[in-house]
Amino acid sequence: MRVVINIFLKEGVLDSQGKAVHHALDSLGFEKSVQDVRIGRQIVMQLNTSSESEAREEATKMCEELLANTVIEDYSIEI
Amino acid sequence: MRVVINIFLKEGVLDSQGKAVHHALDSLGFEKSVQDVRIGRQIVMQLNTSSESEAREEATKMCEELLANTVIEDYSIEI
Repeated sequence: MRVVINIFLKEGVLDSQGKAVHHALDSLGFEKSVQDVRIGRQIVMQLNTSSESEAREEATKMCEELLANTVIEDYSIEI
Repeated sequence: MRVVINIFLKEGVLDSQGKAVHHALDSLGFEKSVQDVRIGRQIVMQLNTSSESEAREEATKMCEELLANTVIEDYSIEI
């Protein structure tokens, strides 16, 4: 089963990569069109299960134990 | 308008970050559940337009000019 995990910095935590890209887009002439940029990680996994609830449970464990730094990051799981 | 851009390494390009995470998950006891891991970037932008086609056009330009390395990466745009 295909599981997609999106990990983003929490609101209020400075997203320096996003700020840098925003600045670079401004320099390239997109200054009128871009209001805000945030950058996160997207992790796509193939899990050996056909149960949606089991996949969600496994993915949550993986996020808590390894994938996300829950002090500063939020994650969402799409199945 | 909110635009989401997902950038991943093309098929066939070694995803060393994905491999490392796969290995780490194996070490943590998920070796039976994980088949494959791929890691990419997700960029979420707020654009100053209410036209979907305009937003898509702008986002495509940004990807080609700055956000993606189209030699080794593919991107998809969700609006």
